[in-house]
Amino acid sequence: MVNQARKSVPKDRWIIIAPGRGDRPFDFSKPEKEATTDCPFCEGNEDRTPPEVFAIRHKENPNGRGWKVRVFSNKYPALNEEEVPYVIEEDLVETMGGYGRHEVVVETPKHRTRLEELDPDEIKLVLMTYRARYRELISDPDIRYVSIFKNNGLRAGASLSHPHSQILATPFVPALQLTELNNTKDFYDQMGRCYYCNLIDSELSEGVRIVAENDRFLVLSPYAARFPFELHIIPKTHESNFSELTHDGAREFSNILKATLIGLKEELGEFPYNYSIHTAPGLADGENKFERSYHWHVEIMPRLTNPAGFEWGSGNYINTVAPEDAADRVRTKFPKELLRA
Amino acid sequence: MVNQARKSVPKDRWIIIAPGRGDRPFDFSKPEKEATTDCPFCEGNEDRTPPEVFAIRHKENPNGRGWKVRVFSNKYPALNEEEVPYVIEEDLVETMGGYGRHEVVVETPKHRTRLEELDPDEIKLVLMTYRARYRELISDPDIRYVSIFKNNGLRAGASLSHPHSQILATPFVPALQLTELNNTKDFYDQMGRCYYCNLIDSELSEGVRIVAENDRFLVLSPYAARFPFELHIIPKTHESNFSELTHDGAREFSNILKATLIGLKEELGEFPYNYSIHTAPGLADGENKFERSYHWHVEIMPRLTNPAGFEWGSGNYINTVAPEDAADRVRTKFPKELLRA
Repeated sequence: MVNQARKSVPKDRWIIIAPGRGDRPFDFSKPEKEATTDCPFCEGNEDRTPPEVFAIRHKENPNGRGWKVRVFSNKYPALNEEEVPYVIEEDLVETMGGYGRHEVVVETPKHRTRLEELDPDEIKLVLMTYRARYRELISDPDIRYVSIFKNNGLRAGASLSHPHSQILATPFVPALQLTELNNTKDFYDQMGRCYYCNLIDSELSEGVRIVAENDRFLVLSPYAARFPFELHIIPKTHESNFSELTHDGAREFSNILKATLIGLKEELGEFPYNYSIHTAPGLADGENKFERSYHWHVEIMPRLTNPAGFEWGSGNYINTVAPEDAADRVRTKFPKELLRA
Repeated sequence: MVNQARKSVPKDRWIIIAPGRGDRPFDFSKPEKEATTDCPFCEGNEDRTPPEVFAIRHKENPNGRGWKVRVFSNKYPALNEEEVPYVIEEDLVETMGGYGRHEVVVETPKHRTRLEELDPDEIKLVLMTYRARYRELISDPDIRYVSIFKNNGLRAGASLSHPHSQILATPFVPALQLTELNNTKDFYDQMGRCYYCNLIDSELSEGVRIVAENDRFLVLSPYAARFPFELHIIPKTHESNFSELTHDGAREFSNILKATLIGLKEELGEFPYNYSIHTAPGLADGENKFERSYHWHVEIMPRLTNPAGFEWGSGNYINTVAPEDAADRVRTKFPKELLRA
C-alpha cells in the first residue's frame, strides 16, 4: 500500500498511514547503534544514506566527506515526493495522498557529541540549516506546514544515537498547531495584541516561571506544561515565523538552547527529550493571516514519564511536577556565561 | 502544592498538575511488582490499599477477603475529593481546583490471570463495576466526565502487574472527547443521523475493516487509526452512553472484549496496551444534548511503537500498519466460539 493521510470526522486530525516505515509493528526494542563503524550518519558513510539535499560543507564534495551539517531524505519516509498530492473529502472520512517530504538533519559529523556539547557556532549552523530547509520546503504549494523536531535518546524515539533532527513537510497543518494558530488568532482579534507577547509581559512581571533569558529569547516553564520539566524558548519581541530568524538571532538562540539543554541535564542527568519548532505556517509576509497573532517558539519536552491510557484516551495530560517547581530547580543550573548578550 | 488543572489558551486543553503523584519525575524504570506477596492488589492485602468504595463480594467482609472485583481510591491520585472545586478564568490561562476522583478497579483477586483469561462472566463483573462507578461518579455535579481506562503492561504505563483498570472523574470534559462530541454533533445536526451509525453501515458494506461481530457489537479497525492494530468495539445499534449497558449487553461485550484481546495476542504475542471507554458525558436522558449524536465505544490501543517528537509536537500520528492489513491479520485469530450469540 502507498502512503496516505487519513482523517476521521470525530477526531478531526490527520493520521499518516505509512506501511513502508517498518516491517514489524514493534519498534520499542530497537537498540541504538552505538558503534561509529555501523553508523550511516557518520562522516565517511555518506553512501549509506539517500543523496544529500542540503549540506554546509568546508569541502565541496557532495555526498562525500567534508561537511558540518548534512540533510537527506529519510530512508523510511512517512511521506514522500513520489506520491501524488490529492484530497478526497467524503462524509465520513477524508483522505490525502501521502505526498510530502521527510528529511534527516545530521547535526554534526561527530558521532558521540550531543547537540549541547557543540560550540554555539556549530549549533548555529544547525539552526541555519533548519531555516534553509524550512524556506525551501514551505515554498512548495502542496505543502501546508513544515515540522522541525528532534528525538534524542531511545526513549524519545531516536533509533540512531548520532545527533540528528528530522523535518516533516506535510500537506496538512498539524492538529496541535491548528489549535494554537486558531486560538491565538481569536485572542488577537479580540484583544488586539499577540497572545504570547501578553504572556511574556505577564510572566516577566510574575517571575516564578521564568527560567532564563538573553537579549532576544526567554526560557519559560509554561503554566500548563504537559510534561515534567517542559520548557519553551520564545523570542522576546514579536516574530510569527521561524523563517524570520536572523544570523544574530540564531547566534543568541544557539546560546540559549545550549544553556537550556545543559541546565536540564544538570538537574535530570542524561535525559531523553523531544523538541519541536512551532511557527506560523508559510512565510512571514503580508499574506500570512497568522503573522500578527502567532509567535514562533520551541517546545522542549523531556521524556521522563510514560503517557498511558488516560493521556491516549483523552488528549489531556497529568504532569507530576509543578511548572514553578521545575523552574526553581533548573534556573540555577543554567550556565551563566551562555546567557550574556 | 495542591493539585490543579490548568489550561493554556493556545492549546485549549486541560493539564492536571499533580505533584503528589511522584517524588521523582522519572517513572520509566519503575519495575512491575511480580511477587504476589508484595502486591497490594492481591486478596489478603486489602489493608495495604485505601478503603474500598465498591466491591462485588461473595462474602460480606468489607476491606477483607472474599471479593471478585474491588474498587478503591488511587493511593497517588491525580485529582481528589479533598480539593475544592473552583474555576478561575483569566485572559491568558484558566485554572481549576484539583477536585475529582481517581479510583483503581482490581479486576480479579488472581494476581497472574490477565483480563482476557477470565471467564466472560467474570469480565462481565468488571464491566458492571465500571457501570456502577460511572453512574455514581457522574452524578456529582462538579464532575463533567468519567474516564475509564486500562494500562496493561509496563510499556503501557502499568506500575503493578496485577490486573486492574482506573477511573478518573474530572471537572472538565477531556480534549479528545470534546472534539469527538462536538464534531459528531455537527454531523448529526447536518445529516440528521449519528455519525457512528452511518459509519457502521458503511464499514459493514465495505467489509475490509470489519474484524469481528456478535449480536450487539462490532470490532472495527478504524480507517484513521492512530496506532498499529488499534481496534474499536462499538455497539451495533445506537447507544450514546456507556451507562446504558444492560446485563445482556455486558455479557456480549465481555465475549467480544475477550475475543479481541485473545485475537490480538495471537497475532502480536504478549503486548502492552491501553483501552479507554468513550461515552457521551452525563447520563443518558432527555437533557443530554449528545444523546442523539454520540455513540459510545471502547478504543483498544496496542502500545507497539513509541510516539516521538512529531507526535508530541503536532498531535498527529504516523501509523506504520494500514488498518485494512491489521484487520486481515487479526480477523482469523479471533476465537469463533466467543463470537456466537
